Amino acid sequence: MTLPATDTLLLEPAGFVLHITLNRPQVKNAMSLHMVQELMAVFDAIKDEPEVRAVVLRGAEHTFCAGGDIKDMANARAHATQGDVGEDPFFELNRAFGRLITQVNSAPQVVIAVLEGAVLGGGFGLACVSDVALTLASAKFGLPETGLGITPAQIAPFVVQRIGLTQARRLALLGARFDGTEAVRLGIAHTLCEDSHVLNSQLDEVLQQIKRCAPRANRTTKQLLLNVGQQPLESLLDDAAKNFSAAIRSAEGQEGAMAFIQKRLPGWAQD
Amino acid sequence: MTLPATDTLLLEPAGFVLHITLNRPQVKNAMSLHMVQELMAVFDAIKDEPEVRAVVLRGAEHTFCAGGDIKDMANARAHATQGDVGEDPFFELNRAFGRLITQVNSAPQVVIAVLEGAVLGGGFGLACVSDVALTLASAKFGLPETGLGITPAQIAPFVVQRIGLTQARRLALLGARFDGTEAVRLGIAHTLCEDSHVLNSQLDEVLQQIKRCAPRANRTTKQLLLNVGQQPLESLLDDAAKNFSAAIRSAEGQEGAMAFIQKRLPGWAQD
Amino acid sequence: MTLPATDTLLLEPAGFVLHITLNRPQVKNAMSLHMVQELMAVFDAIKDEPEVRAVVLRGAEHTFCAGGDIKDMANARAHATQGDVGEDPFFELNRAFGRLITQVNSAPQVVIAVLEGAVLGGGFGLACVSDVALTLASAKFGLPETGLGITPAQIAPFVVQRIGLTQARRLALLGARFDGTEAVRLGIAHTLCEDSHVLNSQLDEVLQQIKRCAPRANRTTKQLLLNVGQQPLESLLDDAAKNFSAAIRSAEGQEGAMAFIQKRLPGWAQD
Repeated sequence: MTLPATDTLLLEPAGFVLHITLNRPQVKNAMSLHMVQELMAVFDAIKDEPEVRAVVLRGAEHTFCAGGDIKDMANARAHATQGDVGEDPFFELNRAFGRLITQVNSAPQVVIAVLEGAVLGGGFGLACVSDVALTLASAKFGLPETGLGITPAQIAPFVVQRIGLTQARRLALLGARFDGTEAVRLGIAHTLCEDSHVLNSQLDEVLQQIKRCAPRANRTTKQLLLNVGQQPLESLLDDAAKNFSAAIRSAEGQEGAMAFIQKRLPGWAQD
Repeated sequence: MTLPATDTLLLEPAGFVLHITLNRPQVKNAMSLHMVQELMAVFDAIKDEPEVRAVVLRGAEHTFCAGGDIKDMANARAHATQGDVGEDPFFELNRAFGRLITQVNSAPQVVIAVLEGAVLGGGFGLACVSDVALTLASAKFGLPETGLGITPAQIAPFVVQRIGLTQARRLALLGARFDGTEAVRLGIAHTLCEDSHVLNSQLDEVLQQIKRCAPRANRTTKQLLLNVGQQPLESLLDDAAKNFSAAIRSAEGQEGAMAFIQKRLPGWAQD
Repeated sequence: MTLPATDTLLLEPAGFVLHITLNRPQVKNAMSLHMVQELMAVFDAIKDEPEVRAVVLRGAEHTFCAGGDIKDMANARAHATQGDVGEDPFFELNRAFGRLITQVNSAPQVVIAVLEGAVLGGGFGLACVSDVALTLASAKFGLPETGLGITPAQIAPFVVQRIGLTQARRLALLGARFDGTEAVRLGIAHTLCEDSHVLNSQLDEVLQQIKRCAPRANRTTKQLLLNVGQQPLESLLDDAAKNFSAAIRSAEGQEGAMAFIQKRLPGWAQD
């Protein structure tokens, strides 16, 4: 596996896990177009690497991500006022971020978000596409967009998918701000951690649980879950049964059955 | 803005807010066809008035709405037994209410429901299409329809959208009754208030939050949220990026950016 | 009404309720193909019997269902390695279970799941299609599939529909195990019961509530709720208004109105 060189991200492969740290702490890891492109390149590089089974996404210096980058916005405004024909820099900037969260949402790995400090705007959206989200009680969540005269455009569908329309409409239309306790109550994050020590031990526990799950079975399962509602139920269940049959006949399925009978850990769960 | 004259509603415009009070307290504000028509006329009148940014919906004499009006039902039954050709008065009565909640659901304003006393049947349905719902702990929620031999017909889809199929099937099939604490736990209402004093101060706080959000950005955002799941994701995100670009170039977007840089309130948030 | 003879199920009709007990306690009521077929035959037999208004589903010896049957899997593996042309025994086994939960999900009766002991894999899926789920705090829930190298194939869509994608992806991809308290928090079960005594009295209460609901109105309402999101909203509301009109004109609707006016229990609620 070759990971791309990155300016805005720290990449740390560790066994079956890739740790990605958003690393622009001087701007609370605000999401520049450059960072968006680097994140997409990294998720692209690991897409077909089944040995990477989990991705841990966090921000440098105990803050997750404060949203879109203001300098990028100012550049886009400069370009826009120059009236370049045939392009819309605001559209491109916004849409690129949407492509990133769409990609992270369907990454074949188990994506774990570690939420601390600012989880705002685009950072909030990124949190909403994780498979597992751990949060500090002190983290600051919010959708500040409409307070700035703009819209949570690319985030909106993922927020609705995450917490339902009932809460999404309230949060977005009030420009709401809230902490990690409320984020867990709303279902944005799964696990509330009182401090960094608890958070790190919860993260270890989650990684141990992922290790016990068969790599290919987990990839297939995640794809299946994401397909729910995207195709008619009967055809989804037919496809799922085909995948089930393929899984049980595969090396993984045979090892899983054998390990169960022999009361031992399967190969993929061993150190 | 011209508001229609109404018999069954009290209308009180106050700055960016329109207060609507269901005003048939002698029947716990039960929803007559006349009230349905007047509510539709009011929401129609403010549809294209961006200066009306919020609607507060409540019932007179500390009760929200006890459901459908029995006298209307009796009239419909009389008509039905006369066997008038080519019309079905029960169908019309029921469907009219469904048109109302469909309209309120997609009203461009932020709709706030103040839930006290009876929140039953059609009143329950109306609560389910608000953007923000405040409830007294003592409010009485319920879906009494099947206990009366009828069905929660026009309400059903909005209850499922509000709280999910899991809870909706239980509540509807048991004819369940419950209080405000449970309503918040289920996600029907957002905020639990111990008494009228708390409720009023929570309402003020919500209105202040709405005031800080840009009027047009909020309208666009609400429409976007309602479109989630109604069109393919990629086309939704393309449209959202176009709206984002339009918003940031607009007078609102420019004022929002300027106010942020100058660390002051934007124009729309000032008194 | 004629119920089929069954080897793996205990059937106990009691007034408007059919009690079904999964009865293979030696394997924690694991779901064999034979049990799947018998359950389908029973639900088929009562489909058009409106006097059966509720089904209570539980497992013998205080355990609900431990998932798929290992012996069936081994048989399928034996057949598969014999290479019989034109069939896939794993596909058939898996898909049959999917047909069962699809059928239970849309059974016209109110289906009540009593969750004790093991609620794993397929048992978990079955719990997810009940209309009302009562659980002991001590019940053990889990999706162990990916830990065995296989996938929660037929269950996945029903888990997503039950608790949303946000929690489903976490539970499935971690092979999570949890108890009844957490199951209620997640919305898998509705009511948490501390012990069997409380559970039985809650079950009685639920059955009393169902008795107060009109049999045909409840059937129509359940179908309506299941149709939400499956057809365009306007056409759903049109159909619902037609059903409403039919209900109110029916013997049930007339009895419901009469009983309400006369302040007495309607016929269907009397002993």
